[in-house]
Amino acid sequence: MSTVALDAFGADRGYAEVLAGARLAAADGIRIRLFGPPSELAEAGEGIEVCAAEEWITNEDEPVAAVRGRPSASVVLAARDVAEGSSDALVSAGSTGATMTASLFALKRLQGVQRPALAAVLPLPEKQVLLLDCGANVEVRAQHLIQFAYLGSSFVEAVLGVARPRVALLSVGEEQSKGTAEVVEAGQALASASGINFAGNAEGRDLPTGEFDVVVTDGFTGNIALKLLEGTAKVVGGAVRDAARSNPLSLAGGLLMRPALGKLRRQLAPDTTGGAILLGLRGVSVVAHGSSSAEGIANAVRLADRAVRERTVERTGEALERAGATRQGLRRPDGRDTQTR
Amino acid sequence: MSTVALDAFGADRGYAEVLAGARLAAADGIRIRLFGPPSELAEAGEGIEVCAAEEWITNEDEPVAAVRGRPSASVVLAARDVAEGSSDALVSAGSTGATMTASLFALKRLQGVQRPALAAVLPLPEKQVLLLDCGANVEVRAQHLIQFAYLGSSFVEAVLGVARPRVALLSVGEEQSKGTAEVVEAGQALASASGINFAGNAEGRDLPTGEFDVVVTDGFTGNIALKLLEGTAKVVGGAVRDAARSNPLSLAGGLLMRPALGKLRRQLAPDTTGGAILLGLRGVSVVAHGSSSAEGIANAVRLADRAVRERTVERTGEALERAGATRQGLRRPDGRDTQTR
Repeated sequence: MSTVALDAFGADRGYAEVLAGARLAAADGIRIRLFGPPSELAEAGEGIEVCAAEEWITNEDEPVAAVRGRPSASVVLAARDVAEGSSDALVSAGSTGATMTASLFALKRLQGVQRPALAAVLPLPEKQVLLLDCGANVEVRAQHLIQFAYLGSSFVEAVLGVARPRVALLSVGEEQSKGTAEVVEAGQALASASGINFAGNAEGRDLPTGEFDVVVTDGFTGNIALKLLEGTAKVVGGAVRDAARSNPLSLAGGLLMRPALGKLRRQLAPDTTGGAILLGLRGVSVVAHGSSSAEGIANAVRLADRAVRERTVERTGEALERAGATRQGLRRPDGRDTQTR
Repeated sequence: MSTVALDAFGADRGYAEVLAGARLAAADGIRIRLFGPPSELAEAGEGIEVCAAEEWITNEDEPVAAVRGRPSASVVLAARDVAEGSSDALVSAGSTGATMTASLFALKRLQGVQRPALAAVLPLPEKQVLLLDCGANVEVRAQHLIQFAYLGSSFVEAVLGVARPRVALLSVGEEQSKGTAEVVEAGQALASASGINFAGNAEGRDLPTGEFDVVVTDGFTGNIALKLLEGTAKVVGGAVRDAARSNPLSLAGGLLMRPALGKLRRQLAPDTTGGAILLGLRGVSVVAHGSSSAEGIANAVRLADRAVRERTVERTGEALERAGATRQGLRRPDGRDTQTR
């Protein structure tokens, strides 16, 4: 088992929920270093070490300025803890921008990676689909999409255990000519690329079917798609509940179906998949949902632990190297990496 | 009641399904002029006039070249029928690109409108949300987003009867600073614009809740969002069905809930809302789902009929004029309209 640096600040439900999540994960044997105010985290419990942090970065702060200007903010301390080797992975349910920035600054990018991407396993019944980028890069170029394809494919192979994952580009039609200029260019390059099982374009309707294992898009579209999928599942689930309450016969039916529907509800809950992982760094960093329950926090810690134990970072780096992905037009013509914004 | 020019070609389920849909709509008193091969459309029935068309445009054809080069293709004839006043509106379940192009060429844009947008009422339980653009413009500038906001707001007010509809821009965060450069610029302009009830940014999760009446985005994101919402509802619906079959108690429960769940399934079916309408033209044009059932075709015809009877085109033009939307930076600085691609 690994050691996870967990940010106690910034979760919508407060310290108590993060602490409860830490206890659930610690009960699995994962060691936790919990960064937050000791006064709020007393008697944390076995396997949890409280590391004092009194400052934090909010959703309203501009991430880069805040991470630079507040070296003792909880997420900055936790990221440094990973960089210095005291922990193996970072987990935070606070500001996504701050977590990404602190991770990037402390953990650095993998060789040849221009833009780390936020990848999430979609909360779907009986399927595992990795969507990236879910919000790290609002605007991208074709070469970034190509690199996301390699990052996602490596992760799914290493952590989800899928051999030769089917990788698709999210677009507005199946034909390779459909989509923005960046999508069309990336599709042409991936169609003849080595070391990746590229399956063409996926449309919006293909995302929840599980036909593709990895779906690649820009961070604007991906963020909207992830939240829309979560929101739609919630609205439809609520409508099923309303339908059950619409008359006495339905109510009886709903009671009989409750165990089966409860299982489905858990599969569709955003908390189940444990949040999004930042791919392309020299370390493991997981962004948990801000609204995470204790179980959601625990699942984010478990995802980070699994990524460490499966040597995701090393295997992703090896896969990128093997595929020559760091050489296939993924650097600027002058050979320098571009700066991540 | 109005007269609708209906394209008999291009629907996934063939002529018979389109004809069956035409009969359903004709039974409501809507007059149909059906453009297709007379041999396949014999004994069409009362209220349906078959207009001979033997050629058509497929999904594989490049729309602009095909519409220009095939003046006797069914969708081109049907669009011209509307332009010449023999019909009041166009409906096609064939190639979306061909339908949009034929409509644009024959019906022309409303004064001051640069880019017509494809708008769809989302298939949601108990809610009406209009999403645009759903695919007419893969890439847009800020001024196009602003104009889509006015087009959508006018349509929802005129046809759906919502007073002062709440209009939002789809983005990656609620804060006005979040999103692409185009979204941020459009948000700033709309925040101080007149004649529109602008409510800020909507996130993906807000789309299915009904919190906003009109959600504005580019055609790439909108197309993916619409299809993803339809796909997610279908997958979740299927999972509820599977849950009902997972054990005998659930099966009994599922039978008791069947009437209530059937109603929900109809609400979530893409066919229910009748397809997407092209806003910003001097005439009514509706793009039905390629996979439409007869009921889906009939609903698309009913949507076109309602748009004609509610004088959508005139009222949208008046609203744009009243709001000064055609003057608020919605033309190029040189005063010429930009070309729709």
